[in-house]
Amino acid sequence: MPTYKAPVRDIEFLLYDVYDAETHYQKIGAEEASRDMLSAIIAEGAKFCEQVIAPLNQSGDQEGCTWSEDGVTTPTGFKEAYQQYVENGWGALASPVEHGGQGLPESVGHIISEMAGTANWSWSMYPGLSHGARATIDLHGTDEQKEVYLTKLVSGEWTGTMCLTEPHCGSDLGILKTKAEENADGSYAITGTKIFISAGEHDMAENIVHIVLARLPGAPEGTKGISLFIVPKVLPDGTRNDVKCGSIEHKMGIHGNATCVMNFDGAKGFLIGPPNKGLNCMFTFMNFARIGTAIQGVASAELSFQGALAYAKDRLAMRSLSGVKNPNGPADPIIVHPDVRRMLLTQKSFAEGGRAMIMHLSQLVDIVHSDVDAEEKKMADELLSFLTPIAKAFLTEAGLEAANLGVQVFGGHGYIQEWGMEQIVRDARISTIYEGTTGIQSLDLLGRKVLMTQGGMLKNFTKIIHKFCKEHDGAKGIKPMVKTLATLNKDWGDVTMKLGMKAMMNKEEVGGAAYDYLMYSGYITLGYYWARMAMEAQNKIAAGEKDGFYKAKLDTARFYFDRILPRAEGHKLAMLNGLDTLMAMSEEEFQYL
Amino acid sequence: MPTYKAPVRDIEFLLYDVYDAETHYQKIGAEEASRDMLSAIIAEGAKFCEQVIAPLNQSGDQEGCTWSEDGVTTPTGFKEAYQQYVENGWGALASPVEHGGQGLPESVGHIISEMAGTANWSWSMYPGLSHGARATIDLHGTDEQKEVYLTKLVSGEWTGTMCLTEPHCGSDLGILKTKAEENADGSYAITGTKIFISAGEHDMAENIVHIVLARLPGAPEGTKGISLFIVPKVLPDGTRNDVKCGSIEHKMGIHGNATCVMNFDGAKGFLIGPPNKGLNCMFTFMNFARIGTAIQGVASAELSFQGALAYAKDRLAMRSLSGVKNPNGPADPIIVHPDVRRMLLTQKSFAEGGRAMIMHLSQLVDIVHSDVDAEEKKMADELLSFLTPIAKAFLTEAGLEAANLGVQVFGGHGYIQEWGMEQIVRDARISTIYEGTTGIQSLDLLGRKVLMTQGGMLKNFTKIIHKFCKEHDGAKGIKPMVKTLATLNKDWGDVTMKLGMKAMMNKEEVGGAAYDYLMYSGYITLGYYWARMAMEAQNKIAAGEKDGFYKAKLDTARFYFDRILPRAEGHKLAMLNGLDTLMAMSEEEFQYL
Repeated sequence: MPTYKAPVRDIEFLLYDVYDAETHYQKIGAEEASRDMLSAIIAEGAKFCEQVIAPLNQSGDQEGCTWSEDGVTTPTGFKEAYQQYVENGWGALASPVEHGGQGLPESVGHIISEMAGTANWSWSMYPGLSHGARATIDLHGTDEQKEVYLTKLVSGEWTGTMCLTEPHCGSDLGILKTKAEENADGSYAITGTKIFISAGEHDMAENIVHIVLARLPGAPEGTKGISLFIVPKVLPDGTRNDVKCGSIEHKMGIHGNATCVMNFDGAKGFLIGPPNKGLNCMFTFMNFARIGTAIQGVASAELSFQGALAYAKDRLAMRSLSGVKNPNGPADPIIVHPDVRRMLLTQKSFAEGGRAMIMHLSQLVDIVHSDVDAEEKKMADELLSFLTPIAKAFLTEAGLEAANLGVQVFGGHGYIQEWGMEQIVRDARISTIYEGTTGIQSLDLLGRKVLMTQGGMLKNFTKIIHKFCKEHDGAKGIKPMVKTLATLNKDWGDVTMKLGMKAMMNKEEVGGAAYDYLMYSGYITLGYYWARMAMEAQNKIAAGEKDGFYKAKLDTARFYFDRILPRAEGHKLAMLNGLDTLMAMSEEEFQYL
Repeated sequence: MPTYKAPVRDIEFLLYDVYDAETHYQKIGAEEASRDMLSAIIAEGAKFCEQVIAPLNQSGDQEGCTWSEDGVTTPTGFKEAYQQYVENGWGALASPVEHGGQGLPESVGHIISEMAGTANWSWSMYPGLSHGARATIDLHGTDEQKEVYLTKLVSGEWTGTMCLTEPHCGSDLGILKTKAEENADGSYAITGTKIFISAGEHDMAENIVHIVLARLPGAPEGTKGISLFIVPKVLPDGTRNDVKCGSIEHKMGIHGNATCVMNFDGAKGFLIGPPNKGLNCMFTFMNFARIGTAIQGVASAELSFQGALAYAKDRLAMRSLSGVKNPNGPADPIIVHPDVRRMLLTQKSFAEGGRAMIMHLSQLVDIVHSDVDAEEKKMADELLSFLTPIAKAFLTEAGLEAANLGVQVFGGHGYIQEWGMEQIVRDARISTIYEGTTGIQSLDLLGRKVLMTQGGMLKNFTKIIHKFCKEHDGAKGIKPMVKTLATLNKDWGDVTMKLGMKAMMNKEEVGGAAYDYLMYSGYITLGYYWARMAMEAQNKIAAGEKDGFYKAKLDTARFYFDRILPRAEGHKLAMLNGLDTLMAMSEEEFQYL
């Protein structure tokens, strides 16, 4: 298994060189997030992730979770690590002070999430999944509900889940069947089966608070008839509720996390938020959950990169084409070979570019949650809405590619479980599926975010890129990048216009173009973050900074622009070729045996 | 697990509509491969693959192989299926009559290999791996060696392996350490450890014939000092040889196939071929082994497509954007959605395009092995040499992508083992690694095949495409495809010229461009096969043929040209951006923690 080391240097570069975190935290009234405070948190978080949970990553995969009538047992060490996490206050880090949290901004929580997720994604899902339940109750719960559930969720003594999916529906929640019937005491009897419930049952906390989507009697059909219910495993009076884990799934990866079938057999539930407005309530924090999954993309790329880099420096094979580099050995380390470097740099550019994107989004989340003026909050919220599907889909696709490259760098050894590289692929594989597949994110981006706003949300972002390019037009060292970015940025608008015209003639064009549009947008978006980082690195170098970190940053940016960004062109050409060939075939014509 | 059905209709289309198999088999003197004969073989082969080995695919993955001191036990049913395979003469199908084979051409064997490999790749590797040993002995063995080993290998009573890789070397065989010291009786004592030996030990056959790469005392260093030895598990006199399986690997996939660590402890071996010429001897059939692996790409794409298609017709989610398609159900089947169709058509275009490429290569193999005139054989051999790295690397990369798309079509269910879709990804993942990684194939293509022949080998192929485009310039129905192909074909030469110029200045440019060059070449190459198929389909349609198969073929070709082929542009732009950003960083600069 790759030995995980938290990329503290890169995180600090983003915080202070790129995103001016000190000003940001002052602006949102989070002065407590001082540089000293953050350094201490990051250092302690890194230690916890490197020393406590990373060592459980491979053993957790091999051991997996065990189901019995009495519940689910998590892999050896998971429970103890979680206790330590709770005792050290990590769960409460970015939660509101009034419920026992430390009140630090979400962006600080995301830094810890990335480190924990890279160290051990399966483990990190247990605390990670509580976020949805916590946010739902915080935003839509009554004072009483907050009092009963929130403090324990914030401390981490209890964990939470979101129960959406049913055997027959995942993306299409409009057809869900779980029903909620009112009891005499004003509570509801919840009956139905939910599947794919991550951390639905486990032995790490004394109670699990499920937020369940269900239908009230006579509710409208479709998505307008869904309500939300709090269904705790243990009721406030201490009795065990009628919600049981029927089985756990055998999955490709994330074996350390229990993916549960949850049977609600007239379980007692409490309505949260207005009846039939469940999906609206959920959308209020959907962006945040999706950023949480986008982080898995960064985590996969980072962990696989760290493993592949160590191996590439160590493994000897062939001689460099430009002359022997390791004369005392029987061959050169494979890192001398250009194609191995291409793979490593692809991983690196996705991990660091993705981290830069996540940190920007995290700051937008901070702003949305802050008391800055309404106009700025609205701007941040819109930008966040636009960038979230890109982050979720593009960064997880990139993370999966990076994880596969990590296996490839190892050659045959990458395929062997012992080395831990194939586990990263298996764990990463779910990231392009859950919290909305790449296809769903693509429709969200092109349909809802871009075309439904007549390009307005896109313009919010392309204006920022335009401004950046204008300001750094003739900038030494990064000029070619700025030029390329400016061209693509203009192109992005033009392509969108063309698609919009087509979509007016035929709505299906949106679905036909959506995936390629998302990937195209993703490559350009990451290009923007790389250009920003390159600009800061160049400034440091120009100011005489000798730290090789800045040169490496600039080199990686150039690599991204030279060798990765050209893929945008392929996606553009594909989507502009339109829908016809997708729809030409009848169902029957797909296969002749 | 997807229920496998052999794509017999597609195979027959390729044989008779596209490649004129009757003329081909007459030309190479294989008149016995008549249409009736082939139909019978394909039908029987399909039955065996669908009914006997496909049902063992998922159970074999779950059960895996078991190691003990006494040997390796294969999954339940594998041994019995293999006995049936041997008894029915499948192993002997395309082997020489003089050693008990049926003497049918290799191309017929490849058709069965694809069907068996799609039904159960792990199982199919046991007979598949014998090919290398059989070919080595056939081409380089003494008459005595042929008598002792070949008949049993041909019948399948014995299986064979190729023992190349050692713990410290895979791609770089020049540094291998296994040694061979001459015994008094003229045999050799082989000592060393070989790893990743597929089917190195198992319970399916009474003897296993290892072909082992080792060094004679005082042999030159590097690849020029490697010799080949036959090392049978059981010696001709019936005694057990000192070769033991030390352990089996725990792998990401192909669990049904035993990947063995083989310890040679002074094992008795017999030199085959001239001393120190082992690698040359191996190259004589390397192309064939690589085509065998290229077939895994087609198999992965086909099996995953079959599974995803069935699911997409069955699973209901959302309504079609252009109006309800399934008014009696709660939602439409997901095959109505353009993005689901994009995924299915990508799989289909890779499976069928890849099959067309493999069949062309198989016919070239037939010609090389036949008694046609020397000039034609030379042409076929050169074309085969050029196309093989493309087939091996591009088709396995495409197969892995297709397998991942199959998981994606299933959504969350794709991640669950029970459905069998994630197994296809795990099994496919090795295909871009073994028999020479994608990186190694890329260097072989651009370095050895293209640039070392001053573009000669490329021209052999681009001339064929040029001729095709010229002949079908104004062809109704396929005109836009022909035009695109002609442009790309010219482009291919131009791009190659540019890379050649760069490589003259700096050899490393070859390594820097190789991967993108291979993928670029792969997309164009598959474009050629799709255009050929489209042309034949269009001819049938023009002749009044109503079979929907032809329309579907034409539609899939158009999809490939519209939506997949544009990726070639991205690879082209990336490779032309050159080497600089790959080499800019020192080893140390890759990571700052």
